[in-house]
Order: sequence, then structure tokens, then C-alpha cells
Amino acid sequence: MNAAAPILLTPGPLTTSERTRAAMMTDWGSWDGSFNALTARVCERLVAIANGTGSHVCVPLQGSGTFAVEAAIGTFVPRTGKVLVLVNGAYGKRLARICEALGRDHSVYETADDVPTTPEAVDGLLAADPAITHVGLIHCETSTGILNPLPEIAAVVARHGRGLIIDAMSSFGALPIDAAAVPFEALIAASGKCLEGVPGMGFVIARAEALDRAEGNSPSLALNLHDQHVYMQRTGQWRFTPPTHVVAALHEALLQYDEEGGLPARHAKYARNCEVLIRGMERLGLKSFLAPEIQAPIIVTFHAPSDPNYRFADFYAAVRDRGFVLYPGKLTQLETFRVGCIGHVESADMERAVEAVAEVFAELNITIL
Amino acid sequence: MNAAAPILLTPGPLTTSERTRAAMMTDWGSWDGSFNALTARVCERLVAIANGTGSHVCVPLQGSGTFAVEAAIGTFVPRTGKVLVLVNGAYGKRLARICEALGRDHSVYETADDVPTTPEAVDGLLAADPAITHVGLIHCETSTGILNPLPEIAAVVARHGRGLIIDAMSSFGALPIDAAAVPFEALIAASGKCLEGVPGMGFVIARAEALDRAEGNSPSLALNLHDQHVYMQRTGQWRFTPPTHVVAALHEALLQYDEEGGLPARHAKYARNCEVLIRGMERLGLKSFLAPEIQAPIIVTFHAPSDPNYRFADFYAAVRDRGFVLYPGKLTQLETFRVGCIGHVESADMERAVEAVAEVFAELNITIL
Ligand SMILES: Cc1ncc(COP(=O)(O)O)c(C=O)c1O
Ligand SMILES: Cc1ncc(COP(=O)(O)O)c(C=O)c1O
Repeated sequence: MNAAAPILLTPGPLTTSERTRAAMMTDWGSWDGSFNALTARVCERLVAIANGTGSHVCVPLQGSGTFAVEAAIGTFVPRTGKVLVLVNGAYGKRLARICEALGRDHSVYETADDVPTTPEAVDGLLAADPAITHVGLIHCETSTGILNPLPEIAAVVARHGRGLIIDAMSSFGALPIDAAAVPFEALIAASGKCLEGVPGMGFVIARAEALDRAEGNSPSLALNLHDQHVYMQRTGQWRFTPPTHVVAALHEALLQYDEEGGLPARHAKYARNCEVLIRGMERLGLKSFLAPEIQAPIIVTFHAPSDPNYRFADFYAAVRDRGFVLYPGKLTQLETFRVGCIGHVESADMERAVEAVAEVFAELNITIL
Repeated sequence: MNAAAPILLTPGPLTTSERTRAAMMTDWGSWDGSFNALTARVCERLVAIANGTGSHVCVPLQGSGTFAVEAAIGTFVPRTGKVLVLVNGAYGKRLARICEALGRDHSVYETADDVPTTPEAVDGLLAADPAITHVGLIHCETSTGILNPLPEIAAVVARHGRGLIIDAMSSFGALPIDAAAVPFEALIAASGKCLEGVPGMGFVIARAEALDRAEGNSPSLALNLHDQHVYMQRTGQWRFTPPTHVVAALHEALLQYDEEGGLPARHAKYARNCEVLIRGMERLGLKSFLAPEIQAPIIVTFHAPSDPNYRFADFYAAVRDRGFVLYPGKLTQLETFRVGCIGHVESADMERAVEAVAEVFAELNITIL
């Protein structure tokens, strides 16, 4: 690794393996049977990771993760439906903005950036408002790295007979989600996150029966997951030109995912990365924003040094020169920066990243209290 | 080239150069300045190819070409607007379906698959219906390969003071479109067509002033081109995770485009491919569907042999075994197949493809009358 190709400690796009990228060196015909087989295998594996084989289907979608979130809201929430959006960060707010843009009635329940939504709160909200048909939840809210209690919230939503839509963009593949035990209508993730593919497609794991019922809801042609699924079932093909190279890379990334030990191994690797990172930064005097029990091993938010010599842009550039790309904070009230734990990186990389940060603090004359 | 990596004679995804694909071997941080510079250079070049520097802007969008078409309709056509959709094939019909899905009032003017829309017809339609605010035109209708008379229709639309939205998906970069002489609000194309990038992003070349006026129109968050543009102007970044590898490949493809001589050279290469293909197939007794004067040098539709031994699936598989991927026909009334002339292929490849077709006809015992 050199300055031209630094290690990405970001929540995606992230560092991928050479083997995954090399899968993009072939051009695939999107009408060809061999490419259809690739798509089918990817979808099959994704459903299996969610333990949804038989009950759930995977609908891949061109575009970034947000496109798939919008597609899921538009497809699963009927025009007369209402969404309770659970917010404790930027991606929850975005989900509410999507409801707004699509003209789907919704209400927002917001907690502070460092406070997970509780199942008790959801219980009360659903009891109080029978108009709510769906609940939108961010599993790992990447704007801080906070983990929301998905299984407990899913149980409450199911008890009230409402549908759950989960944005699991930054958690799927690394944090366990068992579709047989956790009831949901749709779960959204993307190629370029914990599965360690390249960015360019999202996908929705949907309860087959809920997707069937969703016909006619979508206010879009391109983002209509029901039509996308029906067409793919019938032809084996994507409705519109697929990002063939991105699909091939995801296929290759999933082979490696399995070879390396699947979800438990992926989870363990990221947990190790996260621990090494937090401990290393603590040694430098940098405190992480979240309490350990609500910190997902995906991305860590650190309080920036209060030293006036610290400016994120300079800090970022100097760490980048040493081969590591960090990520800006996303909190409006507090000066923070973020470091991702995901991607084709190991704890040794995290150690070296911490060293790089230490060197940069020395170089830029930044002291940490 | 071997059976595992055949030459794609399809309208995209198509065969790209090794150099273009190799650009995907680097992971880019989507927040990083070096990636922003890549995006900026790509957009600058795309506007320049349309001769729109100063007057027009490029708004790139994640997803396939259809996503960009839907985004353009949603962004440029006000909720109270009305679109006249000019149809002579499947992509025109799709544009009408997009208007339908978005709830945009529209009327359809359809000619036969082998009949270009005339400026006279458009003139009459616009004179008769003052409610029409926008006209949607497919430049090269890829379902046959027919070329519609863009400059003449654009002049008529401008004279009536309406806005023109051009789907130039399969023509942009190969057929000249001069934004200084051809008035339009939005022109849509994608990475994986005549620019010879890989699929995964579309883009819209928009008249800056029309885009400014379009604020608030879009019924979508993800497909809102106005917001995408404003955010990119302000930050240099994409609003949502970009398909970084696809962008890098397009950047590299554009460098080669310029080195090879830009649009005139690209046009000449495809025209040569097209001529060699049609002449070669004629030698075998296969007639092309369109008259030469309305045939764009992008993709050619051939009448299938009437011999009962001909079945497209077998023919396709046998030609594929010989290293060439053809494309099925898209006409409902006639048995046809299509052969693309675009991509990193030359006339020698077309010669070899014709030879492969001849061999397959012999092998499958197909005679051509
Ligand atoms: C939780 C969550 N939701 C949604 C998104 C949006 O995905 P994208 O940037 O691919 O549109 C992200 C991106 O990091 C995310 O972390
Ligand atoms: C003229 C035209 N319009 C629209 C499209 C749709 O593009 P995509 O398949 O990338 O969605 C195509 C694809 O070939 C096309 O040729």
C-alpha cells in the first residue's frame, strides 16, 4: 500500500481484496446465461446469510444503498400507509426525508445520537397510533456507530401486527440477523459494506409474502422492487442494465466470505479491529463517543482533540499521507472524527493507523488533554 | 479472447479495453479529494463532448440508464407539466411508462418501428396541444437501431417554447450532439455505452438554467437531479455513495476516447463496424431490418432466417461458443436478432463475427433464402 492507494478506514466504499477487484477484469453480457447464474448465486447467498431461505427473497437493485432504501419504502408502504421512523442519527433522518419525498405519511421518534431506541418506546408509540402500518429502523446508525436493539424492537413491531423495514446497510453480513427469529418485511443493505464488495448495487431481503402483497405500491419505475423481482423470477435477468462488474465483484467477495468462515468470522474480525482501534486511540488519550455496550464493531466516533492546532482537514491529509483514509464526523454539536473497522483490513492495520495518528499529532503539534 | 470472455456485440454492457478495466483495481475513498477530482474531470469532459461548456452541466447519477431517464423526467417536468412522448420502439414506450409511474401527464405519438418521427408531426402535435410542456425523444432507438432526426425535432420544440428531454443513451459520444445548436433541457446517457466504460452510472447533461428552475419538482430523494447537482457543486462529492470503481473506469475510458480522436474517431470506428457487419451478413443472405438512411451505426437488427431449423437460443449459444455474444431482437411482430457495433471492437472483430455466424448456420443446417 502506498499514498496512491491508501487503506480506507471508512464505512464504505472500503478496502477490498485484490481477488475481489480482479473479478472486475472480465466483461459480462447482461443477457447471457453465465451472468444470470452469477446473479442467482449472489441472491441465494444473501438470503442464506439472513437465514431466510424458503421464506425470503433477495431483490438486487442498481445504485447506492439509499436507492434501495427509497425503493423499499416505496414498494412496501402502501400509499395509504404510515411509517414510524426511529431516528438517532443522519440515516434515520434520511429515511424520514425519503417518506417525505414519496409523500408517505410518517411520524418521527428521535432519541439523542448516543441513545438507542428502546422496544418500550416503540411499544408505546404503536399502541398510541393505530394508523402506523410500518416501522423504519436503522440497525447500526453509521453516523455514530450506535447499535439499535433490532431483535427486541422487531418483536414489539410484530406483536402489534405492523411491518418492519430495516436499514441494515452497515451491519448486514457482520452482525447476525436471523430472519427466522426476527420478523421483518424488508431488510436493506449494499454491496460495498460488510460483504466487502465494491459499491454500485443495493439489495433488499424481503419476506416473499410481503413482497407479493406490495404490487402496485411503488411510485417509481426504476425503484419498483416488486417489478424487479417478478421480472427476475421470470427471466433470470435484471430489468435494466445491471452493474455487471460490481455483481461479479460481489460474487467473488461472497466466495471469500464463506471461505473465511462466514458471518461469525467476519464479526470476529471487525470486533478485533474495533477493539484494537479503541484501545490504541485511548492510549493516545482519544475518547470514543459511545458507551462500549452500544458501540457496534463497524465504525467508531472519536472526540476530536480540543487543542486549537487541530483542524480536521489538516489531520485528515496528514494521516492520508501515511496511508490511511479516515472519515469526518457527522455530529452537528460536537467536533468528532470517525474511523471504520470494516473492509479487507486486519487488526495490524488498525495498529498502524493508530501509530499514524500519533505521528500526525506530534507533527501538527496537537496535544490531547 | 476465449469462450469464458467472449466479445460482446450488444448495446451495453459491451467489451471494454483492458486499460479501462484495470482502472478498477484501485479502491477510492468517496470523501477523498482525489476521487472528487476524478468525478469533476469526468463531468467536465462529458459536458465538453456535448459542446455545452459554460451553458450546460453534467449531473452523474448512480444506477442504470433508466434510473437517469426517470430522474430527468421527475426533475425537469413540473408536477403540472405534460410530456409528449415520441415512440418508435421499446425505449420510447419505457419513457411513457416512467411518466405514468411518476404521475406526470403525457401523450404518446407512435410511429412504426422502422419509421422515424418527423419534425412536421411534432410541429402539428405541439400546435394542437398547448398543455404540453416537454417533449421526450429517443435519439437512437436501440430496440431496432433507428435514428430519429434530433436537430430538426429540437428546432421545432424550441420554436414552440417547450422543453426537450433526449434519451441519448446509445448514441452519446458516437453521434454528434451540439448543445450550442440543438436546444434541450436534458440529455441522458450512461457510462457503459459509446464511451466504453463499464455499466453502473448514468448522467444527465442539463442546461444549467433549466436545472436551476427545476428545484422542488422531483418526487424522489435518490433520483432528484437538482439536489444531486447542488450538493456536488457545494462539496465536490456525490450525495450518496458513488460507484467509485465505475467512475474510475469511465475516467480512464474518457482518456482513451480523447487519445483515439474523440467523437469523430469513435463515430468513424462504429460506422466502419456497422458497414462491415451489414455487408458481411448480406453476403450470407441476411437482410437488415432498417433502410440504410435511418440506420444508426450503433446496433443492427437482422431478419432471422425463415428456415425452421433456426431457433434463436441455439443460434445464440453456438455463436457464443465461437466467442461472440449477440443480442435477441426486440420486435414483437417479426423474428429478428441484433448485433451491436459499439464497444472496444474493430471491423476485424465484425468480420470474424460474420464468419462465426456463417459457421453456425452450416453447423445447425440453417439455410437462408
Ligand atoms: C445505515 C446506512 N444507511 C444508508 C446508507 C446510505 O448508503 P449509500 O451511501 O450507499 O446510499 C449508509 C451509508 O453508509 C448507511 O451507513
Ligand atoms: C435508448 C436507450 N434508452 C434507455 C436504455 C436503458 O438503459 P439501462 O438498461 O442502462 O437502464 C437503453 C439501454 O440500452 C437504451 O438503449
